[in-house]
Amino acid sequence: MGVTSGKGFLDRLNKMKNEVWFDGERVNGNISEHLAFKGILKAKASLYDLQIDSDLKDEMTFFLPEEKEPFGISYMQPKTKDDLQKRRKMMQAWARNTHGLMGRSPDYMNTVVMSFASSASILNGRDNCFPDHLHALYKRALKQDLSFTHTFITPQVNRSQVYMEFSDEPISAKIVEKNNTGLVIKGARLLATQGGLTDEVLVFSAPRLFIDSSEVFAFSIPSNTKGLKFICRESFVGGESFFNHPLSSQYEEMDSIVVFDNVMVPWDRVFYYENVDAAADFLLQSSFYSFAYHQVITRQIVKTEFILGVTELIVKAINVGEYQHIQDKLSEIIIGLETMRALLEKSENDAVADVFGIMRPSLISLQAASTIYPKIYPRFSEIIQLIGASGMILLPTEKAFQSEIRPDLDQYLQSDSMNAKDRVKLFRLAWDLTMSSFGTRQTQYERYFFGDPVKLSSNLYSNYPKDFYVEEVRKFLNQQ
Amino acid sequence: MGVTSGKGFLDRLNKMKNEVWFDGERVNGNISEHLAFKGILKAKASLYDLQIDSDLKDEMTFFLPEEKEPFGISYMQPKTKDDLQKRRKMMQAWARNTHGLMGRSPDYMNTVVMSFASSASILNGRDNCFPDHLHALYKRALKQDLSFTHTFITPQVNRSQVYMEFSDEPISAKIVEKNNTGLVIKGARLLATQGGLTDEVLVFSAPRLFIDSSEVFAFSIPSNTKGLKFICRESFVGGESFFNHPLSSQYEEMDSIVVFDNVMVPWDRVFYYENVDAAADFLLQSSFYSFAYHQVITRQIVKTEFILGVTELIVKAINVGEYQHIQDKLSEIIIGLETMRALLEKSENDAVADVFGIMRPSLISLQAASTIYPKIYPRFSEIIQLIGASGMILLPTEKAFQSEIRPDLDQYLQSDSMNAKDRVKLFRLAWDLTMSSFGTRQTQYERYFFGDPVKLSSNLYSNYPKDFYVEEVRKFLNQQ
Amino acid sequence: MGVTSGKGFLDRLNKMKNEVWFDGERVNGNISEHLAFKGILKAKASLYDLQIDSDLKDEMTFFLPEEKEPFGISYMQPKTKDDLQKRRKMMQAWARNTHGLMGRSPDYMNTVVMSFASSASILNGRDNCFPDHLHALYKRALKQDLSFTHTFITPQVNRSQVYMEFSDEPISAKIVEKNNTGLVIKGARLLATQGGLTDEVLVFSAPRLFIDSSEVFAFSIPSNTKGLKFICRESFVGGESFFNHPLSSQYEEMDSIVVFDNVMVPWDRVFYYENVDAAADFLLQSSFYSFAYHQVITRQIVKTEFILGVTELIVKAINVGEYQHIQDKLSEIIIGLETMRALLEKSENDAVADVFGIMRPSLISLQAASTIYPKIYPRFSEIIQLIGASGMILLPTEKAFQSEIRPDLDQYLQSDSMNAKDRVKLFRLAWDLTMSSFGTRQTQYERYFFGDPVKLSSNLYSNYPKDFYVEEVRKFLNQQ
Amino acid sequence: MGVTSGKGFLDRLNKMKNEVWFDGERVNGNISEHLAFKGILKAKASLYDLQIDSDLKDEMTFFLPEEKEPFGISYMQPKTKDDLQKRRKMMQAWARNTHGLMGRSPDYMNTVVMSFASSASILNGRDNCFPDHLHALYKRALKQDLSFTHTFITPQVNRSQVYMEFSDEPISAKIVEKNNTGLVIKGARLLATQGGLTDEVLVFSAPRLFIDSSEVFAFSIPSNTKGLKFICRESFVGGESFFNHPLSSQYEEMDSIVVFDNVMVPWDRVFYYENVDAAADFLLQSSFYSFAYHQVITRQIVKTEFILGVTELIVKAINVGEYQHIQDKLSEIIIGLETMRALLEKSENDAVADVFGIMRPSLISLQAASTIYPKIYPRFSEIIQLIGASGMILLPTEKAFQSEIRPDLDQYLQSDSMNAKDRVKLFRLAWDLTMSSFGTRQTQYERYFFGDPVKLSSNLYSNYPKDFYVEEVRKFLNQQ
Repeated sequence: MGVTSGKGFLDRLNKMKNEVWFDGERVNGNISEHLAFKGILKAKASLYDLQIDSDLKDEMTFFLPEEKEPFGISYMQPKTKDDLQKRRKMMQAWARNTHGLMGRSPDYMNTVVMSFASSASILNGRDNCFPDHLHALYKRALKQDLSFTHTFITPQVNRSQVYMEFSDEPISAKIVEKNNTGLVIKGARLLATQGGLTDEVLVFSAPRLFIDSSEVFAFSIPSNTKGLKFICRESFVGGESFFNHPLSSQYEEMDSIVVFDNVMVPWDRVFYYENVDAAADFLLQSSFYSFAYHQVITRQIVKTEFILGVTELIVKAINVGEYQHIQDKLSEIIIGLETMRALLEKSENDAVADVFGIMRPSLISLQAASTIYPKIYPRFSEIIQLIGASGMILLPTEKAFQSEIRPDLDQYLQSDSMNAKDRVKLFRLAWDLTMSSFGTRQTQYERYFFGDPVKLSSNLYSNYPKDFYVEEVRKFLNQQ
Repeated sequence: MGVTSGKGFLDRLNKMKNEVWFDGERVNGNISEHLAFKGILKAKASLYDLQIDSDLKDEMTFFLPEEKEPFGISYMQPKTKDDLQKRRKMMQAWARNTHGLMGRSPDYMNTVVMSFASSASILNGRDNCFPDHLHALYKRALKQDLSFTHTFITPQVNRSQVYMEFSDEPISAKIVEKNNTGLVIKGARLLATQGGLTDEVLVFSAPRLFIDSSEVFAFSIPSNTKGLKFICRESFVGGESFFNHPLSSQYEEMDSIVVFDNVMVPWDRVFYYENVDAAADFLLQSSFYSFAYHQVITRQIVKTEFILGVTELIVKAINVGEYQHIQDKLSEIIIGLETMRALLEKSENDAVADVFGIMRPSLISLQAASTIYPKIYPRFSEIIQLIGASGMILLPTEKAFQSEIRPDLDQYLQSDSMNAKDRVKLFRLAWDLTMSSFGTRQTQYERYFFGDPVKLSSNLYSNYPKDFYVEEVRKFLNQQ
Repeated sequence: MGVTSGKGFLDRLNKMKNEVWFDGERVNGNISEHLAFKGILKAKASLYDLQIDSDLKDEMTFFLPEEKEPFGISYMQPKTKDDLQKRRKMMQAWARNTHGLMGRSPDYMNTVVMSFASSASILNGRDNCFPDHLHALYKRALKQDLSFTHTFITPQVNRSQVYMEFSDEPISAKIVEKNNTGLVIKGARLLATQGGLTDEVLVFSAPRLFIDSSEVFAFSIPSNTKGLKFICRESFVGGESFFNHPLSSQYEEMDSIVVFDNVMVPWDRVFYYENVDAAADFLLQSSFYSFAYHQVITRQIVKTEFILGVTELIVKAINVGEYQHIQDKLSEIIIGLETMRALLEKSENDAVADVFGIMRPSLISLQAASTIYPKIYPRFSEIIQLIGASGMILLPTEKAFQSEIRPDLDQYLQSDSMNAKDRVKLFRLAWDLTMSSFGTRQTQYERYFFGDPVKLSSNLYSNYPKDFYVEEVRKFLNQQ
Repeated sequence: MGVTSGKGFLDRLNKMKNEVWFDGERVNGNISEHLAFKGILKAKASLYDLQIDSDLKDEMTFFLPEEKEPFGISYMQPKTKDDLQKRRKMMQAWARNTHGLMGRSPDYMNTVVMSFASSASILNGRDNCFPDHLHALYKRALKQDLSFTHTFITPQVNRSQVYMEFSDEPISAKIVEKNNTGLVIKGARLLATQGGLTDEVLVFSAPRLFIDSSEVFAFSIPSNTKGLKFICRESFVGGESFFNHPLSSQYEEMDSIVVFDNVMVPWDRVFYYENVDAAADFLLQSSFYSFAYHQVITRQIVKTEFILGVTELIVKAINVGEYQHIQDKLSEIIIGLETMRALLEKSENDAVADVFGIMRPSLISLQAASTIYPKIYPRFSEIIQLIGASGMILLPTEKAFQSEIRPDLDQYLQSDSMNAKDRVKLFRLAWDLTMSSFGTRQTQYERYFFGDPVKLSSNLYSNYPKDFYVEEVRKFLNQQ
C-alpha cells in the first residue's frame, strides 16, 4: 500500500487494542480518543497526512523500481549525497510541522529500521543470527508504513559499574525459554517513548559490561502481542486548551515501561540472540548511529529555530533587546543553531558510501553535534526563563480572559507591542516549552537522548582520529 | 490576643471573603477549602500551631514588659546578638517545618513590618510622611498576629531602561485622587505571592529611574478592602495525592496580580506618599534589607539542607556514589550549603546596633549570600535532574500502585536498596522539587527573589567598601 | 617580480632601517639579527621560502592573465568557490608551517589588501575618497609581495562609553594639517603586531560613537616614513634555546605602539579622509570582514589541531587517558576543532559572489566561529594546565640536561612512555604554549583578535536574520 | 634564642651551603646573593624582621611559662579560640607584608610542625613509630626559629590509578637500607617549594592506593645533609627592576626536585617508617589538615584582597566601572573574598579542643574553602585579563621611560586618571600577577595547593555528615 494517511494510521492503531496501562487502569476504547493520547496521535496523524498531500509528493515520497506505490522518504536507502539531502529535507519538513517537539516522529524509527536492514549482512553466517529477518522487517515496514517504538534502557536498579543482577525472577528482560516457536521473554525494559502508540516494538540490546547472553537479543513484534504491556507514567497533558497549554495539548508523547510477561517471539521475528559479539559488532559497524544521529540532529536544529523565534519574540514583547546581557544570551542560541547546522552539513559533505553501497553521513561531525546538544538545550531553556523573568510566572488562563475580569487583564498585562491576550499566549508558550512538566521532560529528553552525556564525551574522545595531530607535535619537537 | 493558632488564622481568613479570581471565577465559600488553596493554607496553619505548642513556647514566642500574652518571635525587635539568634532559630524552625519551600511563610512579612516600624523615625518631619502610622501598624500586627503579603513589581509593559508610562488609564498603580478620607489608588501591581491569602496587603514602591511621584506611596490595608482584587495564575497544585505530588499538594502558594480599582486608602493607613526622596531614603536607611535578607537566607539554608538530603537519598537508591562526577556534584551542594551558613553566621557576628537601638545583621555578608543563591539554586535543581536521569521521567502514579499492575511495578521498579513504591515516591519528590510546574516556579522564585540578578551584582559592587584594598595596592606600587 | 623569497624579504627589511624602539634604545644594525626579532623574522622568511619551493608552486602561487610571474595566492581575488578553497589551502599550509602560532603571518594583511582593493568601488564618487589609490596599493603589494601591519586600536585613555578626547595635543592619531603634499598625522595608535617588521603600515579607522572626523582616514605608507616610530613592549623571547622555549624562540611577534610624529602622508597614499559615513560604509560593505575572518579562522583551526596534538601527547606521557574527566576535557577540544571546521566549511559552501564579482565566504558562519574562538581558546589553555598539573611547573632547563646532574634527571623525570628529556621537552612546549609570557599573550591575542567579545556577541545578534523564526512562532500562536 | 631576625636567618642559610642545582650549575657562594634567590630571600628575611620589630611584639610573638625568650606565634599551640585568632592575626600580618603571594611563608611549615607535635601521641606504642622525635622536632624548631620545606608529591611517571612502580633503581624515594645509624633513602620527591632555601626538609608520605611500605616514612633533616640535592626549575625572576617585574623580583619562590642520593637519616630524626596504617592514621587523625588549611586560607584571603585592589584600580584607571559586565566581574571577586572570610571565621567559631587539648578550627568549613579557592583563583586571574584587555599587552619597560622616547610614552599611554608611568606600572603589576611566568605559576600553585581538585571534591563529599539531611527527607516521605 505504500504511504499511509493519518486516518489509516489511527484506524489501524485503534483496532490493535494494545495493553496500555494508565493511572492504574487499562485503556479501553479507541486510544486516539483518550485524553492522554489524543493530542499526540492527532499530531502524528498530521505527519502521515503530509505524505499524501499532492503538493508535497516529491518532497515526502520516493519510488522503488519494482513497485508502483510511493513510499515515505524516511525509509529510503540513500545511495548518493543527493539522496541524503532528500532524506534530510523530508525529516526537516516533518520536524517543522511539529516544531522539533515530537522526539519520536515516525521518521526516527523508520530510519533505524532502514539502517538495520541496510547493514544486515554484518550478521551473515554468525551463530544465532538471522539477517534475512531484518530484510523482511524492512519490506513489511516500508510497504505498510508501519510505526515503531524501541527500548534499550534496562531498569535502574543499581547504576554501579560492577552491578550484576541476581534475582530469582528477571528484572531486566531476558530469554527464559527457547522452543520450536521462538524465544520466550520475561522482564522489563524502561522508557519506550510512545510505547503502545505504535504498530510494533523493536527491541535490541545495547552493549555493556558484564552483560549476560540471556539479555542479548533483537527482534520486532506487534505492540498487541500477548503478554506485552505498556505501563504509562503520569500524563503531562496540561489540558485541552491551546491557549493554556499550547505544547502539551499537542506534543506530549508519553513514556512507558515495557513489560514482557512471558512474551513469545516467533523465530521469524528474531534478528539475533545470545551472541554478545554479534550484537556489539552490529551496533558499531552498522549505519545505525550515522543515520539515527542524522535524523535526530535534523530535528534538533528545527527545535532550536523554534526556540530562537520564541526568545526573540519575548525580547520584542518586553523590549529588552538593548541590554548587552540579553544580546549575549540570544547570541548563544544563534551560535548553537549555526554550529548544529554546520556540523550536520559537514556530515553530509563528508559522507562516504559504506561496503553495502549506502551513503553514510560522516559520524564524527554528528557525534560532535550530539555531544553538544545535551549541553546547550538546557541552557536555551534557562535563557528563556532568565529573559522572561517574573513574566513567566503570572500567567492567567484562557477562562480568565473569557470572564468579567478581562478588562483588568487587558489593561494590566498589555505590553508595549502586544495586547494582553497575545502577550500571555506567548509567555504561556514559553512556559510550556521550558517550565511545565511537559517542558522539563523535553529538557531531560534532549539531555539523555543518546544516553549518559559522560559516555558521549568518552566515546567521542575514543573514536576521534588523533594520531595525525600527535605526529605533527612529535615532528615539531624533533626538529631540534 | 498575642499569637494566633492555625484554626484562628483560617477562621479569620475565611470570614474576610477577599476578592480572589481563579480561572475566570471569583472564589466563593471558604477559601481554606478551595482546591487551589487548601494545601498551602493548611501548611500555613500548621506554622501558627507551632506557636501554641507548649513544648515550643520558648523557641517560638517572647514577652513584652507591659503585656501579658506571648508574641511571635518573628515580630521581636532584636536589641542584642542573642536576640538575633533567637529570631534566626525561630525562623529556622518554621522553615524546617516546611522544608524551606514556603517562600512567604508569615515570618517574612512579620520581619518586614518589624523592620519598617523600627526605622520609622527616618520619616520624622518629612513631607507627606506618617511615621506614627508605621508604629500603629506594628502594634496591630503584633497583637493580632496578622499575616501580610506585599508587592512591589510593576507591570512588565516595557523593560527598556528609558521607558516611561504614557497611557490614559494607569497601568502601574498610581494615586489618582487625594481627599479627606485618604488616597485613591488605581492600577495594578504584579506578583503578590499568597495574594488574597493574608489579612493585609503591604504596598510600597521600589525606587527606580524616572519614577513619577504619583507612583510613590506606602500603606497597608485589609485584603478585603473594596476595589482590591487578586487575580490568580493557573494553579500548580498537581492534585491531592501526597504520593503523586508531595510538594505541590502542600506548598503551592499561588501568585496573583493585585488590582486597585479606585481603592480608597484611609490616611491612618498611609506611611508616606508623593515624596520620592523619603521613599528612597526609607528603603536604603531602614533595616529592611538587613532583616529581610536575614529571614530569606535562613529559609534558603533549610531548603538547601532538604535538597542535599533528597540528592543523597537518590544517590543511595541507585547506588551511584562511587562515580567521581557524582561526588563532584554533591560537593557543589555541600559547598553551597556551607557557604550560605557561614555568610549568615558572619552577618550575625558582625551585627551592629543601629541608631534606633536595633541590632542589625551586617548587610555585606547577606548581600553576598543573596547574590550567590539565585545562581546556585538553579544548579542544584539541575544536579538532581542530572543524577536522577531517566529515573526522573518514568514515574507511575499512586493509583497504578493500587491496581492489579502493582506486582509488575514492584518487580521492575525496585532498586537495590529500596522497594519500588518507596523508590517511585522518592523520585516523584525529586521531580516535584525540580521538574513539575511547582518545582520550576520554585526555581524562578529563588532566581528573582530580590529582583534582577544583574542588579544584585551591581549593587554589591557599588556598596562594597573597596578603598582599603585600592590603597594597599597604591602603597605597594609606590614603594619604589 | 612576483613572489619574494625569505632572503629577499629580510634583505629588503634590513635596508629600511625603520625607527623601532626597544627597551629604551633605537634598534641599530640589521633588525633580522636582533635578539628580540631574529626568531620571528626567520619564521616569516621560512613562509616566503615555501612560495618559491618548486614542489609547492601550485599550492602557493597563481598567475594573472597579463603577467608572467607567479603571485602569492593570499593576494588572489577569488571568483569561484574553487578559488576560495585554494586560498584556504594556501593559508592552511602557511599556518601548518607555524602551527597557527604566527597571528600575523603575511597572508592576513595580504588578504586585507585584496579585500580592500576588491571593494574599492564603494568609495566611488564620494567626498574625500580615492578608490584608485586602493587599486594602486593592491598592484604594488601584489607585484612586490609586500608585507604589512595595520593598527586600529586607539589609546586606552578612558573606556567609558561617553568619552571624548579633549587634550591640547592629540593622543589618538589625528589629521593636524592638510596641504598640497598630503595629510599630516600626529598622535598614536596602539598595538601594531609586528610593527616595524613589515614593509608598510596600513592605517584605517574603526567606526565608533562620537568619532571626530579628524580621526577618520585610511592610508598605507612605508614603515620607514619620516616621523613614524614603533615603540615595542618587553620582549617575550625566553631565550634562544629551542628546548627551553620552543615557541617564543621562533614565534614571538612583538607588539608596538605606533607614533605619528607629524607624519606626512602623500595624497597618492590616502584612500579616504574626514568622511565618517564613507569610512563606516567601507568597512561594513566591503568584503573585509568576510575575508579577514576566513583567514583568521583557517589559522585558528590549525592552531587547535596543534593544541589537540600537544594535549593528547601529554595524556599519553603520563597515562591519564582512562579518567573520565580527562576524556571530557579532550572531547571539549575535539568539539571545538570540529565546530570551527564545520563553520569554516559552511562559509565556503554558502559563499556568494558580491556585486564586484568576488566570491565572498558567508559572513554569518564566520561571525559565529569568531565569537566562539575567544571563549574556547582560553579554555584549551586551561585544559592543558589542568592535565599537566604539577608537571607544568617543575621543568629543568637544557643546560641541566647537559650537566653532571643529568643522570638524576633521567631517572626521576622519566615517564612510563617517554625518557626524561623528551618528557621535559614536551612539557616545556605545553608550558610555553599556555603559561609563559609568550603563551599568555597568545591567549590574550585570541581573546581580542576582533575586538571586545562583548561587542562580537552584540554584532552577531544584531546582524543575524531572525525574522523567519519569529514569523514561524507567530504562525504557531495564531493557529488557534 | 627564640625568634630570629632576617639577618640571622640569611646568615645561617648562607653558611649551610645546601646542594642546590640551578640551570646546570651548583650554586656557589652566598645563596642570598644569587639572582634567582635574592628577591625571595630578602622578602623572607623581611618577615622575620617583623618578629623583632618592637611595635609588633605582641602581635608576632608569645611566651612559654618556662622560657624567657619570645617565640613566633605561628609555633603557638592554641588552647582557646582566642589563641586561634591570635594565630590568624599573626599569619595575616605576614601575608599582608607579602600580599599573600609567598605561598610558603615560614608560618606554613611552622604550623605543620606544631600540628604534628601536638598530635604525636597518635603514634604512641605503634610499631616503627617515634612520637618523642616529633616533640624534639618541635622544641628544636621553636627555639631556633627554624625554617622548613616539605615535599610529598611523587614523580609523575604514570598517573594511572593502577600504576605500581617496577624499576631496578628507585624513582620515588624509598627506604633502601636500615642500619644502626638510621634509614638510608634513595629516590626522588617532586616539587619542594623553596627547596634548598630552608634550614630543614620535612619529608612524609601521603597515603595512596598500592603504596609499598618502603615508601612510607616521615622525618626531618637539615637541608645540607649529605646526598640531599635540590634541582631547580628555570627561574621566573623577570629581572631586578621593580617597575618591570614588581612581583617576580620579590616573590619568586622557586620549586625543586628533591633527590635523595642514599641519604642517611639518623634514627632520632625519624618519626615513623614502614607502618602504612600508622602513617595513614597520623595524617587523618592529627590536626595537620585543620591547621594547615587554617594558615593557607588566611593567606589566600589576603591575596584575594590584593587582587580586588588591583582590579578596582584598573577599573578606575580606564574608567570602565559603569559597565554592567565589569560590575558583575568585580562582584565575583567580592563574593569570593566574603565567602572565604566567612568560612574561615566559621571554622574558628566552630573550633573544638581535640583530645590533646589543642583548639582545632573546624575542618568542614576549611575543606569547603579549600575546594572553592582552586576554582575561583584562576577565574580572578582571568577577570583581570578580561578587564585589562589590550592594555595588558603593550607595556614598555622602565628603560623606555628613562630614554628620549619618554615624551611619547607620557602623551600616548596616559589615562584619564593616571599619568603614563603610573598606569604602565599598574598594568605591569596586573600582568606580573596573572600573565608572566611568575603569575601563571601562582595560578597553578593555588589550583593544586592541596592536590588534585577532583580528589578535594571527593573528600569533601565523603567526609561531610549527610545523615541528618537524609533522615529529614525520609521522615518527610514517611509522613503519609
